[in-house]
Amino acid sequence: MPSQPALRALVLNCTLKPSPGTSNTEALAEVLVDALESHEVATEQVRVVDLDVHPGISSDAGDGDEWPSIRAMVVASNILVMASPTWLGQPSSVAKRALERLMAMLGEQDEEGRPIAYNRVAGFVVSGNEDGAHHVISEMAGALMDIGFTVPGQAWTYWNRGPGPGPSYLEDEEGRDWSHATARAAASNLAAVARALHEQPIPPPPP
Amino acid sequence: MPSQPALRALVLNCTLKPSPGTSNTEALAEVLVDALESHEVATEQVRVVDLDVHPGISSDAGDGDEWPSIRAMVVASNILVMASPTWLGQPSSVAKRALERLMAMLGEQDEEGRPIAYNRVAGFVVSGNEDGAHHVISEMAGALMDIGFTVPGQAWTYWNRGPGPGPSYLEDEEGRDWSHATARAAASNLAAVARALHEQPIPPPPP
Amino acid sequence: MPSQPALRALVLNCTLKPSPGTSNTEALAEVLVDALESHEVATEQVRVVDLDVHPGISSDAGDGDEWPSIRAMVVASNILVMASPTWLGQPSSVAKRALERLMAMLGEQDEEGRPIAYNRVAGFVVSGNEDGAHHVISEMAGALMDIGFTVPGQAWTYWNRGPGPGPSYLEDEEGRDWSHATARAAASNLAAVARALHEQPIPPPPP
Amino acid sequence: MPSQPALRALVLNCTLKPSPGTSNTEALAEVLVDALESHEVATEQVRVVDLDVHPGISSDAGDGDEWPSIRAMVVASNILVMASPTWLGQPSSVAKRALERLMAMLGEQDEEGRPIAYNRVAGFVVSGNEDGAHHVISEMAGALMDIGFTVPGQAWTYWNRGPGPGPSYLEDEEGRDWSHATARAAASNLAAVARALHEQPIPPPPP
Repeated sequence: MPSQPALRALVLNCTLKPSPGTSNTEALAEVLVDALESHEVATEQVRVVDLDVHPGISSDAGDGDEWPSIRAMVVASNILVMASPTWLGQPSSVAKRALERLMAMLGEQDEEGRPIAYNRVAGFVVSGNEDGAHHVISEMAGALMDIGFTVPGQAWTYWNRGPGPGPSYLEDEEGRDWSHATARAAASNLAAVARALHEQPIPPPPP
Repeated sequence: MPSQPALRALVLNCTLKPSPGTSNTEALAEVLVDALESHEVATEQVRVVDLDVHPGISSDAGDGDEWPSIRAMVVASNILVMASPTWLGQPSSVAKRALERLMAMLGEQDEEGRPIAYNRVAGFVVSGNEDGAHHVISEMAGALMDIGFTVPGQAWTYWNRGPGPGPSYLEDEEGRDWSHATARAAASNLAAVARALHEQPIPPPPP
Repeated sequence: MPSQPALRALVLNCTLKPSPGTSNTEALAEVLVDALESHEVATEQVRVVDLDVHPGISSDAGDGDEWPSIRAMVVASNILVMASPTWLGQPSSVAKRALERLMAMLGEQDEEGRPIAYNRVAGFVVSGNEDGAHHVISEMAGALMDIGFTVPGQAWTYWNRGPGPGPSYLEDEEGRDWSHATARAAASNLAAVARALHEQPIPPPPP
Repeated sequence: MPSQPALRALVLNCTLKPSPGTSNTEALAEVLVDALESHEVATEQVRVVDLDVHPGISSDAGDGDEWPSIRAMVVASNILVMASPTWLGQPSSVAKRALERLMAMLGEQDEEGRPIAYNRVAGFVVSGNEDGAHHVISEMAGALMDIGFTVPGQAWTYWNRGPGPGPSYLEDEEGRDWSHATARAAASNLAAVARALHEQPIPPPPP
């Protein structure tokens, strides 16, 4: 049996907490990472808030901006996983910052004239101490689809426990079975669509 | 002490289930209704799906359209409460139908030249068997603010129990204390802002 | 050269206006339809409001419900295009009704144990006389991803002309070049991802 | 005639561009500021990106965090105006950062036991070179309502010119009349509701 093409995934952990603070988002993302690796996807993670990512919509804002190193990892990956906490029912400001910087990819093309996000897939992990995950996922997916990423069906997982403010993921084991099984399905779907587009890529858009 | 002005509230229950089916949304809305009545607000409820509300953006679509009777109740009320279930993390199609019909109010003015939604306030009740309430509230609030309703701070409550599909409100007592206390605060805030605007109304917009 | 697999697409026009009323949404969707056909995709269209689609979340609500005929067309298609007008910056109630009914697919599997929406792709067309298209797209995409549809990058187009209420698509030729070129790119991307998943399908989720 | 109570407003300009870069958002916000001043509201503006606002959900993150000076201005104001550009159809990361920091107000009370955001009102200004304003407004309003701000009807304005990426506010005079008239109505509504709540405040929530 021929081996499958090597795929790479990047997880952008968009927690508000700098290292070495405990990140519930990271803990839940680990489940997806483990599942991706079982599908022979090499996975890297970045905690975005640890880097000095400047505001803006360019690929390199200069003057000490550390986004270019993240951007290089995005470009080297077939799969991008945005992992965000939920605050006020919405994605974190760190996730929004990353999306704004990814927006520069709208103006960049590969050697065949495709927007460079084409043939990359995106998935999502959302943690929270309150309701909001579906919306956080839709916001991040909407932005990445606009940039050119393909979003496989059921390519996300989440954990929260309502109603109202409640425990965080690491503080309560209730519901983890669902969140973890959903993460494993997401990994399967992300790897499958990434492989299908690797084998049979979306062509450049018509002129 | 002079008695407070009599206020009226209308609850639009936007469940997908026709009567006499059990509505979790209605059950949670009852908590808000009871609290509104304790603030001397006379309250009516309509289960919108029981009426034949035609699609469109007019106040009367004719031909058997039953929206005009609901519209008359909205116009007679100081407080409008939209109560919706959560499906796919979003407001129900019945809630959307009602909002589209309310949109006709954008073109209607009171005798002083104000958009007729001015000086009315809006609140929200959201039930669900999965995550999504914050977004359901924001969607309904965004639409009503556009039409001219004022939305008091913390004028909503919700109940769901994640992660993933779970029980409905009437099937699980967990979290009810929070949802009910939040409903009582919402009622207090709705009544207070409705009274303040009754006493000291927003004037017509500048020409 | 071997011929490409035959693909089928279904456009759900979610205008609020029954036939034979003029639908701006349909007019813009035609551009996408023509482009899909140039990619050898056989395309059907349904104006959902012309059918008696009952509220609910089942595949067949009985009692005269006309959703089952639409559902059969969805199941026969590789590509689903949701086309919606924009009212209050949000998808139409008819679009929401269709999404709620599609939600029943969450509980249905193909013969290999996959959720039946898997390996189908979704695209979007949004018209409006005011701002809101990005959000309408994100809402519909978020719902369909949840059900299992894959959303290719840049698989949508829209037209509106702000700020504030303005002309409808058929009333103003400004901006059509952008909307039409974007529709052609969307068709290319939908056909390519549908073909890739037809050749190399997403497997059933892990147990 | 007795003079009206002195009101204060704060505009948080959430552009991604540091000073002295030209901010389209600021230019549009000026129209609202002028209108607020005509209603005897003293107005201050802050360009948030010029300060070092740390990520987090506390009122003071320490270690050089410059949010506390903004927070003091919010607390001194009756009216908060969030002004944001539109990127990818969504609020800016700077707006999200501010909202996260404002979230700390959820845990803070005034001397009568009210959440400190109560009896403050919020309005919105949104600029963009593409569609998205309605959603940007709903997101910011949803977050502020959660914290306790009251949102008057029609308390916002926006400018963009679609479809697709187009000019920025300062580059195109089309549509300004609508945006400016809408800004003037927003100012009238913000001042009126702020005054009504100043005269007749929302009481503390029931125990």
